[in-house]
Parts: sequence; C-alpha cells; structure tokens
Amino acid sequence: MNHRLVFLLLSKITWLIGLTMAFSLPAAWPEVGGHSEFESHGFYALLSSIAICAFTGGALRFLGRSAPETLYRKEAMAIVGLSWVLATVLGAFPFLLAKVVYTSVDGVEVPMGIAESLFESQSGFSTTGATILTDIENEKWVPRCILFWRSSTHFLGGLGIIVLFVAVLGQGSAGKALMRAEMPGPSKEGSHERMQHTALIFAAIYCALNLILTLILKLEGMTWFESLCHAFGTMATGGFSTLNGSLGGFESKAIEYTVICFMLLAGTNFALLYFSLLGKPGMLFSDPEWRTYTGIIVLSTLIVMGMGIWVTTDFNAQGDLSSQEEVETAFRDGLFQVVAIITTTGFGTADFDLWNNFSRALLIVLMFVGGCAGSTGGGMKVIRHILFVKILSREIEHSFHPSVVRHIRLKGEPLTDPELPHNILVYFGLVALIFAVSTQVLVGIEPDSTWVDAGQPVSNKLVDSASAVAATLHNIGPGIGIVGPTQNYAPFSAQSKLLFTFLMMLGRLELFAVLVLIVPSFWRDR
Amino acid sequence: MNHRLVFLLLSKITWLIGLTMAFSLPAAWPEVGGHSEFESHGFYALLSSIAICAFTGGALRFLGRSAPETLYRKEAMAIVGLSWVLATVLGAFPFLLAKVVYTSVDGVEVPMGIAESLFESQSGFSTTGATILTDIENEKWVPRCILFWRSSTHFLGGLGIIVLFVAVLGQGSAGKALMRAEMPGPSKEGSHERMQHTALIFAAIYCALNLILTLILKLEGMTWFESLCHAFGTMATGGFSTLNGSLGGFESKAIEYTVICFMLLAGTNFALLYFSLLGKPGMLFSDPEWRTYTGIIVLSTLIVMGMGIWVTTDFNAQGDLSSQEEVETAFRDGLFQVVAIITTTGFGTADFDLWNNFSRALLIVLMFVGGCAGSTGGGMKVIRHILFVKILSREIEHSFHPSVVRHIRLKGEPLTDPELPHNILVYFGLVALIFAVSTQVLVGIEPDSTWVDAGQPVSNKLVDSASAVAATLHNIGPGIGIVGPTQNYAPFSAQSKLLFTFLMMLGRLELFAVLVLIVPSFWRDR
Repeated sequence: MNHRLVFLLLSKITWLIGLTMAFSLPAAWPEVGGHSEFESHGFYALLSSIAICAFTGGALRFLGRSAPETLYRKEAMAIVGLSWVLATVLGAFPFLLAKVVYTSVDGVEVPMGIAESLFESQSGFSTTGATILTDIENEKWVPRCILFWRSSTHFLGGLGIIVLFVAVLGQGSAGKALMRAEMPGPSKEGSHERMQHTALIFAAIYCALNLILTLILKLEGMTWFESLCHAFGTMATGGFSTLNGSLGGFESKAIEYTVICFMLLAGTNFALLYFSLLGKPGMLFSDPEWRTYTGIIVLSTLIVMGMGIWVTTDFNAQGDLSSQEEVETAFRDGLFQVVAIITTTGFGTADFDLWNNFSRALLIVLMFVGGCAGSTGGGMKVIRHILFVKILSREIEHSFHPSVVRHIRLKGEPLTDPELPHNILVYFGLVALIFAVSTQVLVGIEPDSTWVDAGQPVSNKLVDSASAVAATLHNIGPGIGIVGPTQNYAPFSAQSKLLFTFLMMLGRLELFAVLVLIVPSFWRDR
Repeated sequence: MNHRLVFLLLSKITWLIGLTMAFSLPAAWPEVGGHSEFESHGFYALLSSIAICAFTGGALRFLGRSAPETLYRKEAMAIVGLSWVLATVLGAFPFLLAKVVYTSVDGVEVPMGIAESLFESQSGFSTTGATILTDIENEKWVPRCILFWRSSTHFLGGLGIIVLFVAVLGQGSAGKALMRAEMPGPSKEGSHERMQHTALIFAAIYCALNLILTLILKLEGMTWFESLCHAFGTMATGGFSTLNGSLGGFESKAIEYTVICFMLLAGTNFALLYFSLLGKPGMLFSDPEWRTYTGIIVLSTLIVMGMGIWVTTDFNAQGDLSSQEEVETAFRDGLFQVVAIITTTGFGTADFDLWNNFSRALLIVLMFVGGCAGSTGGGMKVIRHILFVKILSREIEHSFHPSVVRHIRLKGEPLTDPELPHNILVYFGLVALIFAVSTQVLVGIEPDSTWVDAGQPVSNKLVDSASAVAATLHNIGPGIGIVGPTQNYAPFSAQSKLLFTFLMMLGRLELFAVLVLIVPSFWRDR
C-alpha cells in the first residue's frame, strides 16, 4: 500500500468539502435564508469548520508529497472508504460547533453531541436522510445556514456516488457489467480517459437535473432556499427536508408529483439517461433493469391503492373524501411512498406506518430492493435482484439436470463475467448476515426504556429495530414504529447512533470498501 | 423419467406407513392408553386409514409392475419429494376420519378439516411439532390412539430423514462432504452396498436411542404411553407432547434434564455417534461442526441466563425464588429452550416469549441455525453457517487480493468439492427468498381479525408472521406472539395452514427435493 498516494487524494477531498461548506455561508444572512436576523453562531461554526478542512487538507497534502501517480486496487479501495470516513468527520463539525439543539427523549433541549453530529453528517453524505433533529423549523435551534449545509451533504454524497460508481466501485459489480453491455463502441472499459469522460458526463447530468428541479420547485411556490435543499434531497435520493412535515408540509400536489418524477429519474441508471439525451430513448425502455424497476413501482402502487381503498380506509381515515378524491389521494400518496422507498429517498407525504399491514410489509420488502445500478439510489439495486432470481432458478434446474450448463442471460446476451453469479450471491449473503447481526446488536445495546420514553410499545422492539437497521443499511431513512415516517432517530442512545452511522456508510459503499477497512491484513504491506 | 420405478418405490413407502399405523391400534384400549373406555371411533378411523394405505400401495404396486432396477438422479429426487407428499396425505386420514376436535378461534368446538389434518400430519412427518390441537388432554376430543399415531409420525419422519440423508439427500450437500471426510477406509462413497450399510447403522442407532430414552422416561415417572410418545418427539427433534403444557407439564427436573441430553444427541451427526460407540469419541470432540454446535448452545444459555437474572427477572417473575433457586431455574429453563430451539425440537418448559427482548431475538436467530448435518435436527445446519462465514470472510479478502486463491479449510483440510461454496450460498439465498416471500404472502392471506380474535396485538402481525414462517420452514414449531410457546396454529385460516404445510415439507427436505416438483421441466422427459 502506498500511503502517500492515499494522503494526497484525501487532501483533495478535504478541500472539496471545505469549499462546499463555503457555499452555505450566505444562508446565514436573513435575505438568503428567509429568517429574522444574521446567524452569527452558525456562520462562525461554518467558518471554523472550513478552517479545519483547510488545515487538515494541508496536513494531508504534506504527508502525501512526492507521491507516485499509479493507483492500484488497494489504494483505490482505501481512498473510497477513508474519504467517506473523513467526509463524515469533517461534515459533523458545523453541527457540533454551532451547538444545534434537538430534544432528547425526555423532552429536554440538548445540543448535538459527537454521536449526533456524526450521525447527521453520515446520513447526509450517504444520502440516507435519517435525522435526529426534532424541530428543523425552529431557527433558534437549527440555523438556516447549518440546515443548508445539511442538505449540501446530500448533493456532495450523490455526486460522489455517481463518480465513484464509474471510477472505482463499478469494477466487477453488476452495475458495471450492465453498463459495459450498454456502452456503444469497442470495449475499452479499462482506459483511464474513458472513465474520466463518463464520470464527467454523469456529473453534468446530475448537476443539470438538480438545477432544473430547483427551478421547477421555485416556480411551484418554494423559496430559493427551499428549492435548492429539496432538489439536493431528491436528486441524491437523500430525503432531508426543511420542514418538520417533510415534503408533505408544503401541501402542494404539484410539488409532490414533480418530486415523484425526479425521484424516478434519480433512481434510473444515469447511462440510460445519457443515451436518452442522445436521442436513443429505446435503450431506456428496453433495459431489463429499468423495466423491472418501473414494473415493481407500478405493481406496488396498485397493491397499496387497492388494499388501502377496498380492504381498509388508509387514504380516507376521517371519511371526509369523496370516492374520486380518495382514489386520487391513494394514487398520489401510494405512488409517492413506493417511489420514495424503492429509490431510497425517504421523503414523506403520508404516514405509511398507519396503513394496513400488507402495505407496511410490502414497503419493508421494497427497502431491500433499491434503485437501479448507476443511479444515486441506494439499497441492493434492482439488477442484483434480477440476477439473484435468475441464478436461483438456474440452480433448481441444475439440481436435476447436473450436466446442463446454462449461462445467465440478460437481454438475450449471456453474461460475460464468469464470477458475477458468485459475487451476487456473496453480496446477498453479506447483506443478510449484516442485517441479522446488526438487529441483534441493536436490540442488545438499546434499552427497552427508549421505547417506553418515546411512547412506543416495547413489544414492537424487535420489528422496529429490524426496520431501523434496514432503513439505515439501505440508506432510506424512515422505517416503522419508533423510526416511522413521523418519528426520528433522536431517542436512540449514542452507541446505537454510531452503529447506524456505520451501517449507513456500509450500505452506501456497497459493503466491501468499508469491510476491508476493518480487516487487519488489508493494512499490512505485502 | 421412469414413472414405473417411482410408483414401485412409493408403494413400499405406502405400505410402511400403513404398517406403522397398525402399531397405534393397541392404544385404543384403556389398558394401553391409560384412559377410561375403548376408543371405537379412533380405532375404526385407524383401521380405515390402514385399508386406504393397503389399497393405495396395491394400486401403486400395479402401476409400478416390471419396473427397471436402476435408479437415476431424477427418479431419486421425485421419490423423495413425492414420498413426503404421499406420507402427508395418508397420515392425515386418521385425524380426519376420527373427527378429532379442536377449538377454532372463536372458541367453537369443530372437527379437524382437510387443511388441519394435512397440517398436523406434515408437522409430524417433518418433525416440526407445530399443532392446531387446542386440548390434547381431552380424550373425548383426541382419542389416545390418534395421539399415539401423531407421535408415531415423528418417529417415521426422523427415521426417513436419517435414511434419506445417507441414501439420497446427502449427495453434494455439506453434510455429505463432512461425512465423507469422517468416514474411515478407502473412499467408495458411491457404492450401493456401503450406502445401505451406513443407512442401516444409522437407523439402528436411532431406534436404540428411542428405546433407551423410553426406558429412562418410564423410570422417571411417565406411563409407557407417555414415554414412547416423548421419546419419539425427542429423538426425531419433533416436539409433539401428550400434555397441553408440553414437557413442562410433568414438572419434573429429572425428565427435563434427561430430555435436554437426548435432544443434544438427536442434534448431533449420527456418524459421530457411531464412531463414539466404536470407542473413538475423539472424532466427536474434535469435529468442528459439533464444537461450534455446543459452543453456540453454551454461549446462548449463558446470555439468556445473564440477561434474565441481572437485567430482568425472567426466571423469578413472582419474586418467590431464592437466588440459588433462580440460578438453577435460569440454567434449566435457559438451556432447555436454547437446545429445544437449536435442535428444532420445540418442546416447551418455559414461555420464552415472556423473556427480555434480547433473549427473544437470540432465540429467533437460533431458529435459523439448526442442528448438525447427519442428525434428525432440522433448520439450516451448523456446518452451513460455518462454511457461510468462511466463504464471506474469504470474499472480503479476495476483494483486495484478487490474485490470491484461498481454499476453504475444515479441520485443516481444504474442501475437495469445488462447487460447495457456491451451493452453500445458493442455499442461503433460497432460504432468504422463501422466508421473505412467504412472510409477505402470509401477511396478505391471513386477515388482521385473526390477531384480534386470538387476543393478540395486531401491531405484532408482521413479526409474528415472520416467526411463524421461520418456525415452520425450519421445522421448529413454536415462534413468538400468536404462535408463541403457549399458543398454537389453530387460529390461522385454512389457506395459511396449507402454506405452513408446504413450508414444513420444504424445510425438511432441504428445499430442492420439493422445489423441483413445482418446476414443469422436471416432469418433461428428456
């Protein structure tokens, strides 16, 4: 392992974070943030954090002096994992230094501690959108400029994923295999220039979509501040809002339908968006992953609508809607929540935890699905599930026809990577193991009294804990029960918040880039 | 596929079931069953069922006339799956014809229907021990001779698994790989004679342990009838009792400790028991699977004891025990439940659903562990978990050292079967998929009103359903909530009972032998 090269690249990331923080400074002025007076403590917290970034970046640059140019696999993995750790720590400083206030479980106003700041920072960078803040509309507690920084971490995190996906993470993964198949021209996937070119195009699409959504939301009645924050939250599939009632707080059907559309785009493979821009939308509509992704969304929405209208009264609990209004509400709320969960955005317009049990269970299953490969959506990704089902079907046939060797096909083409089926199974195995172990650990380290104090039934501790692990591991945000759509992660103890922080990073970097960091032999020189 | 050969072998199994039914006839007499008067309706139900077996066996024998002798893989798989289906259907007749009575959820006394009879029969043959009977001590409702038949299905099921493991199912599975490594002498694992010889030895050990346990339980105060039924329930890791309070109903510490020991034996690889009998106990104590199995049991018991004594008062809820008595109770109840769950027996001496949430979650995790390969214990098997963790660890290292090829080692020897890691991952993937889909289906087909009528919180529907699926898929019996240790499966609708019946068979035959039956291409001739 060449440590100097790792330090050099980390220094660049540190400066990038500091630079981004500077963009939050203007929001300290009332004219920008839309609040009453200049936020001096938020402003100086940001300034100090920028100074910390500058200094850390300088130190890392010094440690990384005269580094070689060649980047090997191990260095690349170390940079991915460590840059996320570094970003999380640096991104936590504004929250910590501004002494942002939230209410702990017993209703006492307390400033965010180290665990809370790390949680919020990681939740932003990993585009999870889970929060420990209990009243984000209170300017005294949460300065607007810090709230803007919170949403900016989504933007940076989403950008990082898009670039990382192309540059480093995609190697050998299902998404890369698909992208390779979709890319026109002769196969030069290894070349550095091509990688850089693709990364740039993806970043440009991402920024353009952020800009367009900002403009639309502004036209639909949001302030510039709100528009930017919600565009960041949508396109990164993050989920941080500026209202306590999340996106539902705006009570605007236009805004909700707009965000549905852009969440759908954010969960789509950016390579396919690129080809659509080039005038080849056929590549999008014939893509097996995208077809499955939209198919799951349509089917799930119909189920949620049907169950909620015919079996229960999920969308007309007060009984004050006409049947036409009920269908429209069911369509809008159902589609919104299905899309918000599958794309791992996690915005809320309706409390799906109050819906019927079948819809609740369905949304939990969707948490394990995730968006498309090559999108900003988190989770396990649709393509992995397609391949997973194909692999298992093939194995059942293999058990009685052992001599028949069947290649797994996607769009009629056999998969070229012979290790892919194995890698998919390993990924599912790791997710299952991490999910089970983390739930057991969470039940152990979090006392029952947390449920009692939060006014939640203790008998739901197991299922609530499992949903909290799934919602953080898959970068969604809300789960059910104590972490339901109208709740937040504030009641948890510091050690549980650190566990969630770890899970969010694990999920965002698709496990391996984080897991290797805790393997001793990774750090030993060969 | 040679259908004649399948018919021929199924006819033999049919006759074997009819013959076993005849052994339940004596229990109709008061002198044997220990009840008040001759059970004519139970007796005639059994006689009719025997006649049905004889006739069905004859018909199958006719269809299988002049069948060839060679057994190919496909025929073997078909026989394994179909024999279990056939046994379940035939085994259901005594319950159905005797009009055994249970109370449905609204407290009304109803005779067992087709779904209930199939459920109870499958629960017996698959050695699950889940029941829909609400009062098995009531002789008017459940004749003693039918109760004896119910326990006999455990005995047959356990025997079938032991023989199947050697003869058919072991092929290519982890258990077989281990057994191969343990077997002395030159490797002739394919030979028919050796297989038959091993199967006979295993069956002899199984019968001998049943006999010894029957004698011990008789000496400890049970009647012959009770001793036999509980020996069947223990050695097959089934769990059917003759008391409503399960094994705890005897209120005898001696009986509980005895059953703990024999459950432990039933969950141990029978090959290792055989070598211990031959004077080589070292093979048992040095076996990695057995060491892990006992290690998990010791650790889990200590955790359950520690949490129950220091954090809560699980073992002294009334506060009437001295601290010494509390420790003894914690040890006995904790060890009993841990062993009952991991071996998939499911006997009850304490309501673990009332324990603290960490212990409850731990027992749910243990449901997914199961006994050792080559035992009568169900579940996923300890050896698969050992290999699963080794495979995943290797993959993490492989991600940053792609050139290093590491073989997975067991007892220092590299695994010879190159397909084994892949097969293990496929198995875990299938279990995860079946578990998730079945839970979702169960939540959908079972109305919320079942929970309301059973006096259980509807908010627990998801976790209760998941535990019911795990408890039947892994052949355990009790789960939590509505299927907790003091509850039963009576409240569920007929369609859910049929789903459980399918899951029990699926789990017992380690998925593939059942899954192929529902694949159309399996039935097509090549």
